[in-house]
Amino acid sequence: MDNRCRICDGMVKGAVDLGMQPRANAFPLPGETSDEFFFRLTVGMCDSCTMVQLLEDIPQEVRYHDGYPYHASGSAGHRRHFEGIAETFLEAELTGRDPFIAEIGSNDGVMLAKIAEAGVRHLGVEPSREVAELSMSRGVQVLPEFFDESTAERICAEHGHADVVFGANAIAHISHLASVLRGVERLLARDGVFVFEEPYLGSVVAQTAFDMLYDEHSFVFSVRAIQAAAERFGLELVRVEHVPLHGGSMRYTLARPGQRPVSPAVHEWRGLEDAGRLAEHATLEDFGRRARRIGDDLAGLLGDLRAKGHRVVGYGAPAKAATVTNYCGIGPDVVPFVCDSTPSKQGRVIAGTHIPVKSPKAFSDDYPDYALLFAWNHAEEIMAKERKFSERGGRWILYVPEVHIV
Amino acid sequence: MDNRCRICDGMVKGAVDLGMQPRANAFPLPGETSDEFFFRLTVGMCDSCTMVQLLEDIPQEVRYHDGYPYHASGSAGHRRHFEGIAETFLEAELTGRDPFIAEIGSNDGVMLAKIAEAGVRHLGVEPSREVAELSMSRGVQVLPEFFDESTAERICAEHGHADVVFGANAIAHISHLASVLRGVERLLARDGVFVFEEPYLGSVVAQTAFDMLYDEHSFVFSVRAIQAAAERFGLELVRVEHVPLHGGSMRYTLARPGQRPVSPAVHEWRGLEDAGRLAEHATLEDFGRRARRIGDDLAGLLGDLRAKGHRVVGYGAPAKAATVTNYCGIGPDVVPFVCDSTPSKQGRVIAGTHIPVKSPKAFSDDYPDYALLFAWNHAEEIMAKERKFSERGGRWILYVPEVHIV
Ligand SMILES: Nc1ncnc2c1ncn2[C@@H]1O[C@H](CSCC[C@H](N)C(=O)O)[C@@H](O)[C@H]1O
Ligand SMILES: Nc1ncnc2c1ncn2[C@@H]1O[C@H](CSCC[C@H](N)C(=O)O)[C@@H](O)[C@H]1O
Ligand SMILES: [Mg+2]
Ligand SMILES: [Mg+2]
Ligand SMILES: [Zn+2]
Ligand SMILES: [Zn+2]
Repeated sequence: MDNRCRICDGMVKGAVDLGMQPRANAFPLPGETSDEFFFRLTVGMCDSCTMVQLLEDIPQEVRYHDGYPYHASGSAGHRRHFEGIAETFLEAELTGRDPFIAEIGSNDGVMLAKIAEAGVRHLGVEPSREVAELSMSRGVQVLPEFFDESTAERICAEHGHADVVFGANAIAHISHLASVLRGVERLLARDGVFVFEEPYLGSVVAQTAFDMLYDEHSFVFSVRAIQAAAERFGLELVRVEHVPLHGGSMRYTLARPGQRPVSPAVHEWRGLEDAGRLAEHATLEDFGRRARRIGDDLAGLLGDLRAKGHRVVGYGAPAKAATVTNYCGIGPDVVPFVCDSTPSKQGRVIAGTHIPVKSPKAFSDDYPDYALLFAWNHAEEIMAKERKFSERGGRWILYVPEVHIV
Repeated sequence: MDNRCRICDGMVKGAVDLGMQPRANAFPLPGETSDEFFFRLTVGMCDSCTMVQLLEDIPQEVRYHDGYPYHASGSAGHRRHFEGIAETFLEAELTGRDPFIAEIGSNDGVMLAKIAEAGVRHLGVEPSREVAELSMSRGVQVLPEFFDESTAERICAEHGHADVVFGANAIAHISHLASVLRGVERLLARDGVFVFEEPYLGSVVAQTAFDMLYDEHSFVFSVRAIQAAAERFGLELVRVEHVPLHGGSMRYTLARPGQRPVSPAVHEWRGLEDAGRLAEHATLEDFGRRARRIGDDLAGLLGDLRAKGHRVVGYGAPAKAATVTNYCGIGPDVVPFVCDSTPSKQGRVIAGTHIPVKSPKAFSDDYPDYALLFAWNHAEEIMAKERKFSERGGRWILYVPEVHIV
């Protein structure tokens, strides 16, 4: 187990072990499940910069490829969110003579499409070909590669410095984060900003959302760890804003030192983290123990319901579903199928546990007694949309922040 | 000292004592400072529902009156914020046949003006006449009274049930909160929502922002205390969103029980509060001790600077400035004046310490050596706007989260 910190020269001590786990977004075809990839999912905290990270690194080419199934525009709420971000950038940051914005992990162009519409110079860096081509069809300029120091050098040479470098649910997915930070520092204009939003360690720990841990999430960021990493690579953390996506995310704004005033929100969140002892190894260990208890509770509940002849179906097949089903040993015998609105996942199975993924029609055509909500971060939209299921006596099983039935 | 809880039948034990304090928004004329109102500012936590509240209640008629000086539209950032809220309500909640929205503390119409523009039925409840008249001039319907159970009854009789009841930096200002909650429960439509945003206890404690405590803030809300209060008055907390205003606020959405799904953000924030022990009396006592230390540090620094012949001027005269200047004994001998862009405060003095309030011109005409930033929650906008002051060697004194110079 390689436990040197990926950011500084500290050592990473393992604190949470979720056992053998597959590639969460693999979604193999039913026939292709013989030689599946598995790795030991252990998460630790650096004893020096406190960055929380996977101990084992899964090569990016294995994780991101032509058929990568996640489509950022899949959720209406997320679409509105990213369109709002594009508008804010257009009003606040892309106001100079000839502004230029680059996005890391631009996916299907959910944010850059609005920038392209406004006729502003931009470049999406997106290695997964299918989603990259989708965004090109929406008029977005895309470099179909993995962002790192060298790509940054080339982008800078060809397009000049960037007023904004943006990333959402992508920066924490890149294990060579040190190279990314060096690249951004090289690419940023004098008064440019590096803005990224990722699932927030404080929120994951506070809700014991252990299913947020999977191969693609190389890191789980905290304000303290990002502040330290920024400083180490010649940048300064100047603002943080909590974002309600993915169960609780944090948006970080980095600038060149002294270029921007530091928002009081940076002190606010450092204070909240210190109060919750978020930078202590013991906190992560407690999180791991709570995860074990929730896993046992969930497996127990599903076993009881099955014994009593109740039918349980999964609702939503996000990458998170692989972590919780593999960790709790939940297979098609207990959950016959899971419904999901993403076409590229339908007809396939959850990696590792092989629970079939079907269209939402399979759920609404024949309501089960219980729906196990894997997409718990979308609970509001889903429960409102599936109101009829509840009115007909259907119940939701949730396991965040603990196992409970609604 | 009356220490029965204003929400439940628990007892409130004092934890923080900021000594004798004036009405923070009084801003008397220089000649009117002989018979000023003072009260003992002590803050405690209810031993049952954990609601944090002032022990001494200052009558609302004393605090809110014709000439109440705070104009919500005074800050560009706040204007954008409240216009965004109006748009969200128009898109998400005011979509029925004949929607109706009421706002408590509508002030100068910063939010309702947009609702009125859209031709949607609305009513602002605003007892301070000057700002009430300002909003009427912007086409906003206003009831110039204090909102409570009886006003709610009359509004319901005349206008019918409300799809939205909104309040910003107003609900925590009303000591008869129990009556407000009963009124809102009476006024809300079956699927209506009560949305309010107020400074957040977690943020105040995390930054030791003791200057956020003053006569108008009867309560400092936490998610746990609001969840309990909602339940006690027949409502349910269904969503919370962190808002970066006023140094860190929280927006609460309450609905009739079972009408709306509960957002995972409610569990997220309850978990963050539990991790930070926010509901423990000892946490509030520690906060009080840190406030004392910061007060001494600030007084010490200002004394040193004065001894070395440096000129210090105050920047921004928010209500908070009264708390910190009275608590630290900072008078015109140490800070000759403070500049503020609000016309209704210029030519007047800070209550209790009588530091004169002048226009921003007095600051920019003759830069001091140091600017003591009372309006620290606007640090980003102010430091960017006053860039020339820093470039000329001017330094900012901040005292949140501790005394430091930038
Ligand atoms: N090194 C790298 N450089 C650029 N993009 C990368 C990358 N590694 C992974 N990605 C991309 O990052 C994306 C993560 S999914 C997130 C998509 C979108 N930004 C959203 O927030 O919803 C994938 O599209 C993946 O292909
Ligand atoms: N009982 C009550 N009912 C309605 N408004 C009240 C009230 N007590 C105080 N207020 C009003 O609440 C306002 C607080 S100032 C906040 C104004 C604005 N909502 C903002 O967020 O910036 C004042 O205008 C005051 O007159
Ligand atoms: Mg992610
Ligand atoms: Mg207030
Ligand atoms: Zn490290
Ligand atoms: Zn109480």
